[in-house]
Amino acid sequence: MSETSTVLIGKKPVMNYVLACLTLIQNGSESVTLKARGRAISKAVDTAQILMKRFATDVKVKSISIDTEQVKNAETGTMSNVSSILIEIGK
Amino acid sequence: MSETSTVLIGKKPVMNYVLACLTLIQNGSESVTLKARGRAISKAVDTAQILMKRFATDVKVKSISIDTEQVKNAETGTMSNVSSILIEIGK
Repeated sequence: MSETSTVLIGKKPVMNYVLACLTLIQNGSESVTLKARGRAISKAVDTAQILMKRFATDVKVKSISIDTEQVKNAETGTMSNVSSILIEIGK
Repeated sequence: MSETSTVLIGKKPVMNYVLACLTLIQNGSESVTLKARGRAISKAVDTAQILMKRFATDVKVKSISIDTEQVKNAETGTMSNVSSILIEIGK
């Protein structure tokens, strides 16, 4: 396994995502892409920073991109725009 | 004036920052750098996205970088790490 893996950042504590990334890297993933929407964006940045500064100092940010996604509100059925971020980290 | 201007994203509503960026660009700034720390990071991404999709469609993301800053807690005097983001947008 040497492809890119994706970790979706949600509502769990930040260390869960750090450990998920570490496991993927140690199992041979060449790079890991962190994906987050809305308020989870800052948690994605936290995850990348904690991973690089404390656990895997040989890992670097390869690319960062931001985008807008359309999300449908399940209750009202209206569409709304939400920002998203993709952070690709790897050796 | 054609240098880079910096807009610090804080606790105000996101449209305040969008308007600040628009004003800078219309006054001749070649690029605008959005800077945010901690939870304001997602607001910085929102600001960039609203600006590019709705108001200044000729403006693009030039670079994005993430970092960690040390912040001193005013009450306890302890140092803590906080993530930061820099989003540079321009024509």
